[in-house]
Amino acid sequence: MLAKWVYQPCPGVSAIHRDAALARQAQLTKPAGSLGRLEQLAIELAGLQETERPRAMRVPIIIFAGDHGVVAQGVSAYPQEVTIAMMSNFASGGAAISVLARELGSRLEVVDAGTLAQSPVPGIVTDKPRSGSRDFSTEAALETVEVAFALECGKRAVLRAAGEAPDLLILGEMGIGNTTSSAAVAAALLGISAEAIAGSGTGVDAAGRARKVSVIDQALARHGLTRGGVSAEDVLCAVGGLEIAAICGAIIAAAQLRLPVLLDGFIVSVAALAAVRLNPSCRPFLLASHQSAERGHRLVLRALDIPPLIDLDLRLGEGSGAAVALPLLRLACALHNEMATFAQANVPRAN
Amino acid sequence: MLAKWVYQPCPGVSAIHRDAALARQAQLTKPAGSLGRLEQLAIELAGLQETERPRAMRVPIIIFAGDHGVVAQGVSAYPQEVTIAMMSNFASGGAAISVLARELGSRLEVVDAGTLAQSPVPGIVTDKPRSGSRDFSTEAALETVEVAFALECGKRAVLRAAGEAPDLLILGEMGIGNTTSSAAVAAALLGISAEAIAGSGTGVDAAGRARKVSVIDQALARHGLTRGGVSAEDVLCAVGGLEIAAICGAIIAAAQLRLPVLLDGFIVSVAALAAVRLNPSCRPFLLASHQSAERGHRLVLRALDIPPLIDLDLRLGEGSGAAVALPLLRLACALHNEMATFAQANVPRAN
Repeated sequence: MLAKWVYQPCPGVSAIHRDAALARQAQLTKPAGSLGRLEQLAIELAGLQETERPRAMRVPIIIFAGDHGVVAQGVSAYPQEVTIAMMSNFASGGAAISVLARELGSRLEVVDAGTLAQSPVPGIVTDKPRSGSRDFSTEAALETVEVAFALECGKRAVLRAAGEAPDLLILGEMGIGNTTSSAAVAAALLGISAEAIAGSGTGVDAAGRARKVSVIDQALARHGLTRGGVSAEDVLCAVGGLEIAAICGAIIAAAQLRLPVLLDGFIVSVAALAAVRLNPSCRPFLLASHQSAERGHRLVLRALDIPPLIDLDLRLGEGSGAAVALPLLRLACALHNEMATFAQANVPRAN
Repeated sequence: MLAKWVYQPCPGVSAIHRDAALARQAQLTKPAGSLGRLEQLAIELAGLQETERPRAMRVPIIIFAGDHGVVAQGVSAYPQEVTIAMMSNFASGGAAISVLARELGSRLEVVDAGTLAQSPVPGIVTDKPRSGSRDFSTEAALETVEVAFALECGKRAVLRAAGEAPDLLILGEMGIGNTTSSAAVAAALLGISAEAIAGSGTGVDAAGRARKVSVIDQALARHGLTRGGVSAEDVLCAVGGLEIAAICGAIIAAAQLRLPVLLDGFIVSVAALAAVRLNPSCRPFLLASHQSAERGHRLVLRALDIPPLIDLDLRLGEGSGAAVALPLLRLACALHNEMATFAQANVPRAN
């Protein structure tokens, strides 16, 4: 059993504000419906934020990093030390998400939620119960207290971000091996095979992917996760990762504070799936961003019933896909809030 | 015969800069190819702009407005006076593109390239050979000298914009009836039926669309445009519009100045198709933006061989789809220019 807060209900969508936004869209000087999904985004945000003027300006980005014992099975195209090296790259401003955060005017916080780093990395928040998960091909990746710690780590990061009154949040991840852990979590939660969901991650070849599939399928069998009906808590313990659990906790904590979360790619979406299984009331606060090139992402988004906004063959992680999609939300809000109505502009309406 | 400049060759893509950009992408701290189409965009822009550091910061928006005699046939959901009313809405800042231009920091110029306005509209550049095109269901829409004037109008607007050293241009349009004229132009250029390409425009119902299809098919037959092999000049005269011809001229003039143009929706893409037929060397300077909800847009983009970046069910025009896509180009450039290399960040490469 996890802490009580994990299960506490999130606030509901404000139907009054959603309906007011819908009515306003019909008054704006454009053919009805001609702004397509941008109209829907503004309306959805108005309901989530309980406001007549939805906003996506203040959007902190939080990245959770973790290492994975299963990397010992040769499932990644990159060596494990890349996780720590990339934390330094985030902090010094050279990573993709660092560049995007600057461009978007977003504050970037990086949390070591469970990497192998033995001492704190400069510029990084360290908040972990252990260094790396265990190799889930031979034992459970995490103990319940470790998953519980990681969920709290996510919540703590959201509470820090909440201090700057954000409009919504972007959550990202870094962790060599984490597409393997995520694929295992998703396969267990969705009751499907590894073959259906495991992809190439950072770029393993066909043989590498076959190894990944085999490692996951054997682990699911070993941990009794092929029968369906297992709890998200049990799945996170058996085959999860600390950064995945931290994102899961961050999503629930954000939704409880009425803070929407702009989804990123495969790993964040799997964490979101686990969050929705733990606490279904967080679901409305998940906003679509991109369709990743990683094979399993489509299945996870379908299970969440969240159609993506963009599909640009991205598969980088770090929250980068969400960051790339953020300007679309900002423009959707600006159009909603600032366009003239037919009456204001004295423009004739349709025949 | 149009003026000589229309046929003069545009500069070529710089293979040296494109290849250098490709090589740089492989050095950046991310799995190879993991930024997908954003990598391709940066590489493409580097080649077009002949630079190591592609940019999409200074992006003036030029909207060309025109009226259409064929509106008399009941092909639009909106009354004709909306064209002029919307010009005022652009100028006073209440239209979608006005809001987007402010958000993007883009200068917005609106050119009356042929509306029915009898006196200059405040804040609008007037540059037209006549007020509105003729009803192409009964006669040729434009004379050759009028099309030639409109092409010059587009060129003049590009030369004004060139003064601020833009990185690329966004061209947009406004004109009640212009999806009908554009569908007729595209059908003639592609040698297909109106049924295959005419859509709902600003929102006609099924009966309205059937009327539109019938009007176009009869006009194509009347003007001898069903045989294929007709010149773009003849097509623009028979069934074109002044704002469509102006955009066509603007695209050619921009490409001749090595200025890429970010495509908008159906009407701008049809103008681009006409431009490519008049002067094929402008083709590389057309950049993908969005897939519009207007039925024929997919066919026109396929003919241009330009896969869209985003697909958000937009069908507003005004350059709005291009404006919405612009942040993706900006982020692609920022990532390309500012990310650290593996060597700089001391990050290990793939196994």
